[in-house]
Amino acid sequence: MLHLYTDASPNGYKVSIALEELQLPYQLHHIRIDAGEHRQPAFLALNPHGRIPVLVDDVAGITLFESAAILLYLAEHSGRLLPTGPARWQAIQWLQFHASSMGPLLGQRVHYQLLATPSLPAVSARFIALTEATFATLDAHLRTHTWLAGAAYSIADIATFGWTHIATVCGFDFSPFVHLSAWHARMAARPAVQRGIQIPEVAHGP
Amino acid sequence: MLHLYTDASPNGYKVSIALEELQLPYQLHHIRIDAGEHRQPAFLALNPHGRIPVLVDDVAGITLFESAAILLYLAEHSGRLLPTGPARWQAIQWLQFHASSMGPLLGQRVHYQLLATPSLPAVSARFIALTEATFATLDAHLRTHTWLAGAAYSIADIATFGWTHIATVCGFDFSPFVHLSAWHARMAARPAVQRGIQIPEVAHGP
Ligand SMILES: N[C@@H](CCC(=O)N[C@@H](CS)C(=O)NCC(=O)O)C(=O)O
Ligand SMILES: N[C@@H](CCC(=O)N[C@@H](CS)C(=O)NCC(=O)O)C(=O)O
Repeated sequence: MLHLYTDASPNGYKVSIALEELQLPYQLHHIRIDAGEHRQPAFLALNPHGRIPVLVDDVAGITLFESAAILLYLAEHSGRLLPTGPARWQAIQWLQFHASSMGPLLGQRVHYQLLATPSLPAVSARFIALTEATFATLDAHLRTHTWLAGAAYSIADIATFGWTHIATVCGFDFSPFVHLSAWHARMAARPAVQRGIQIPEVAHGP
Repeated sequence: MLHLYTDASPNGYKVSIALEELQLPYQLHHIRIDAGEHRQPAFLALNPHGRIPVLVDDVAGITLFESAAILLYLAEHSGRLLPTGPARWQAIQWLQFHASSMGPLLGQRVHYQLLATPSLPAVSARFIALTEATFATLDAHLRTHTWLAGAAYSIADIATFGWTHIATVCGFDFSPFVHLSAWHARMAARPAVQRGIQIPEVAHGP
């Protein structure tokens, strides 16, 4: 049995969307970050760094944290959502682009644009510029590609959508990036995506 | 033939170390960030986001950016530096931990602690605290593991060392984390690591 430990958040939605796309049965464990449940000993035994999501596959005896690692695991074990041949490396490249070059910077933008007190305009402006640069790179790529790895819908799309979804929830406007916006709309129209962003509940922004 | 486009930097060293460990022949292309070569059209054709490293495998017809994607590619194509069985997922998990939870935060720490003018002590302090939390998580894991994935030396170690090496170059002291420090010393003693951190040249910090 698969177990997903998650909360209503960008890194969690990536995994709930993937599980919905794959239609794999799993048991959901809602870890309430607001209530500090991610810093309790029971959860730290699963991820000593105290972050969601975590996936446990108790048949295989595997406990995994880091959303991109979990997506690779689900793709490998289902044989789906990751193309073969050269497109495999395109999918893995854009998965890593999201993991290193997009998500962490959007996380800092959420903090400095919406949460930090006192507000620090120069710091917000820097993270706005850096995240807009990642939107521009994705936009240019999606001008000529349906999905990030080309013809095949993959875990790279799911991962990236985790963050563009939270960008919309946070009011970060990427509509000037028309190809990225059109891709986001294609993603948002998928039934599994619509289900995934309600698990464990809908996000309301900070 | 493999081609590596790189500069003296944390994300570049990960790949030069891996190539030295694997003893794979490759052609080196030094992209001088100081001279803006990463923003020239010839390089943007390889990585539209304008960042090193890039690996080109002209036999397979593959061009890849993102250091973690390149490390996965080299491991898969050599059949080395990534264990099989459950340890495979430990290696991938810690590779992703480095890619998402460690490297991007250390990059921001370099910027706010060493480069930003005017200096912003509250921002530096936040990135110091966040990076120390990642050191603490690694340290606790390495208390009971020789390498990040356990008994097998892997691309997770190489990737993480890219950043602990730059931490030492930048004077970020992680010596209180004794298990992380001992692991760093084990890494630094490897001949391939010693060669890798001189390709394309030695780093001198900002
Ligand atoms: N790189 C990690 C990031 C995980 C992460 O930061 N999760 C957030 C929720 S989206 C969290 O648990 N935050 C709680 C905290 O930082 O204390 C991943 O992709 O899984
Ligand atoms: N997530 C990317 C980061 C690449 C990156 O930021 N590379 C730096 C050198 S370590 C770079 O090219 N910087 C030039 C710039 O930011 O303009 C990776 O792991 O490859």
